[in-house]
Amino acid sequence: MKFLSTAQPHFAAQFNALLARSADEPQVGAQVREIIAQVRERGDAAVLDYTNRFDRVAMTAADLRITADEISVATAEIPHALRDALALAAARIERFHRAQLPQDIKFTDETGATLGMRWGALDAVGIYVPGGKASYPSSVLMNAIPAKVAGVGRIACCVPAPDGVLNPLVLAAAKMAGVSEIYRIGGAQAVAAMAYGTEQIAKVDRITGPGNAYVAEAKRQVFGQVGIDSIAGPSEVLILADDSANPAHLALDLLAQAEHDEEAQALLITTSGALAASVLDAVKTALETLPRAAIAGESIRRHGAVILVHDWDEAVVLANRIAPEHLQLMLAEPERMFAKIRHAGAVFMGQDCPEAIGDYVAGPNHVLPTSGTARFSSGLSVYDFMKRTTWVKLAAGTLEAIGPAAVALAAAENLGAHAASVAVRLGKT
Amino acid sequence: MKFLSTAQPHFAAQFNALLARSADEPQVGAQVREIIAQVRERGDAAVLDYTNRFDRVAMTAADLRITADEISVATAEIPHALRDALALAAARIERFHRAQLPQDIKFTDETGATLGMRWGALDAVGIYVPGGKASYPSSVLMNAIPAKVAGVGRIACCVPAPDGVLNPLVLAAAKMAGVSEIYRIGGAQAVAAMAYGTEQIAKVDRITGPGNAYVAEAKRQVFGQVGIDSIAGPSEVLILADDSANPAHLALDLLAQAEHDEEAQALLITTSGALAASVLDAVKTALETLPRAAIAGESIRRHGAVILVHDWDEAVVLANRIAPEHLQLMLAEPERMFAKIRHAGAVFMGQDCPEAIGDYVAGPNHVLPTSGTARFSSGLSVYDFMKRTTWVKLAAGTLEAIGPAAVALAAAENLGAHAASVAVRLGKT
Repeated sequence: MKFLSTAQPHFAAQFNALLARSADEPQVGAQVREIIAQVRERGDAAVLDYTNRFDRVAMTAADLRITADEISVATAEIPHALRDALALAAARIERFHRAQLPQDIKFTDETGATLGMRWGALDAVGIYVPGGKASYPSSVLMNAIPAKVAGVGRIACCVPAPDGVLNPLVLAAAKMAGVSEIYRIGGAQAVAAMAYGTEQIAKVDRITGPGNAYVAEAKRQVFGQVGIDSIAGPSEVLILADDSANPAHLALDLLAQAEHDEEAQALLITTSGALAASVLDAVKTALETLPRAAIAGESIRRHGAVILVHDWDEAVVLANRIAPEHLQLMLAEPERMFAKIRHAGAVFMGQDCPEAIGDYVAGPNHVLPTSGTARFSSGLSVYDFMKRTTWVKLAAGTLEAIGPAAVALAAAENLGAHAASVAVRLGKT
Repeated sequence: MKFLSTAQPHFAAQFNALLARSADEPQVGAQVREIIAQVRERGDAAVLDYTNRFDRVAMTAADLRITADEISVATAEIPHALRDALALAAARIERFHRAQLPQDIKFTDETGATLGMRWGALDAVGIYVPGGKASYPSSVLMNAIPAKVAGVGRIACCVPAPDGVLNPLVLAAAKMAGVSEIYRIGGAQAVAAMAYGTEQIAKVDRITGPGNAYVAEAKRQVFGQVGIDSIAGPSEVLILADDSANPAHLALDLLAQAEHDEEAQALLITTSGALAASVLDAVKTALETLPRAAIAGESIRRHGAVILVHDWDEAVVLANRIAPEHLQLMLAEPERMFAKIRHAGAVFMGQDCPEAIGDYVAGPNHVLPTSGTARFSSGLSVYDFMKRTTWVKLAAGTLEAIGPAAVALAAAENLGAHAASVAVRLGKT
């Protein structure tokens, strides 16, 4: 794990190098374009060809959709304690997202114009769930529950089964979250199927959910045909900690981020040299016993850092530069720091609030903007599954008050029919 | 203008053909990739090279940014009546968008967890304004005012000056809307400069605004590096009208859409054969005197249609299939119809509310989802210039209530450090 200090002469360059981690993205554009073209042309046949090849299976059209029986069997297999944990998480996620539900707008102004904005749910959405090692039931809850709360009528879900293996918890989470249908497919072919539709898979209006480089590129390419959520990059955490923090706890918090994958990033900023040294030590110690030590260790080695700052003002500047996906404020007075933070996906305040709580049971979404995109984007929410329609109704007399300005502006833009369509109603043509 | 009727045997195929209008997009991906790469590598020098070539000018680095003097001179040139019209539009747009400003969320649940969501403005946004024929001051207001209302600190604007020609109204509108800086550039090079930054142009966090195929493709390619708004396609209007409508007015409403460009689409659905015939006639008559008759006539010929339906239920189904950008409800009871509309960007109710009112002075945004994307996206709003941060703070005892479920789920996902980071705080490691 790197140790940086703002007192060092080359700090700025070292800090920039730390943030420049996602440059070596594989170039998969051409492959993904071909997959999408094939799925548009050949539908389910193409989806099956790619699935059988990439997931090393031998599926036929009858296997595409996972049956209600399979889902029931999988759900029944799950230990009660785990089912209860999923249910607790689902209930808390649902409650938080209900609090997000927006209000319509309607008001009448002094000219008699009534103006409004009406929110409505999307008709159908598609949720991508990664397969294999990263097939997380918590992600199913975090994607599907906001859609359900938003009022989406149809929630389709695609989850690949590499080598035929499916995670029963994923199926149980999908059922609990109100998913309408689940398909046993993944990759760019799943994204293409949901975006354009096939014989068996009706097209959706928006696709969300994390995935590998192929899935991200496919989402980018179908954007416009359907809506998508942000392109997720590798995950990161930034911890700001003072001497009130427990170094052993912080080490586990950093490693919880690092164990996601080798490209994940775990950063700690502190004003305390003693804490910095203790955490560096504690990370080494914890790595000795951690089950995913190989991945976590590689992430920590390549992208992890403890940054010693002179004061908290310096820390604020760096934190806002990083615009972290996850921000733990392990400080005696976390609210004071939070008021100065401009860019972060999700914030966890106080020593007993590790980020893992937010991954599962806190309630806010764990699908969050990565790699500094918290500067301009937000975590997944009910708004991702809704859209707005604005509307106008004029009273008798309103057009006399505001119409002439529209005619003048339309004429200035050389849009004669625009001007005429208003002027004719003012009796001026 | 085509005439279709749901009573005709081949209606479904004809209707589908009508909606399939945006298939022949030019393939500009490779050119745009090269432009972006050059701007990233050579900064302002590349921006100037492309600008001089594409806009037929001879700019140097000193000409990139439009000076405050130029803006003042341009503003002073504008007739008072037009300046007043712009000011009326700006005030009404600002008021509507203020009504959109969202509320933060904060609540404490029975476990003692305090959960919240805080809205904040983006630091910097870039607004693209097309040059030449389609350089519209109204679009400057519609893009910049929501950003200003959202609280964005820095609003940069790019507007190309082909052959050195700038629209003084665009500069006046930018000044009125609170734009911080204006650059005399356009195309993919302007998008690249705003997304990645150059010597003179600081990078922004989000880029909005309409543009040609190169601009749209550039926005698509920089998505992820910065946020973008929806990719705008050709504009469209759908009018639902009954016998209470004036055919001559409807003809001008249809032509107001058609005069935008040859790819624009103007559609009318009615249950009245008499109205359908009158409107077809009135369109022909109006085209004889319209200044932009060549463009409008081509749009009407290629994409325009009057569709006769058996009843209003049929109309609702077709309208939701179209998911129009603009929907005029020229009906005796527009609210009854509005309640059945699921997908539309903006709705205009009643005979004296033509869509052109919404383009300029009604208040809601005129940057709207085109080509059926109203199924999953919305008009430009203050939300496009804000982002959300969720946050969690736990009370003493909360972790005992919800932590064990997080440990169970983390263990089930094989994320040992996640589990340990919670368990250690429960005293269970």
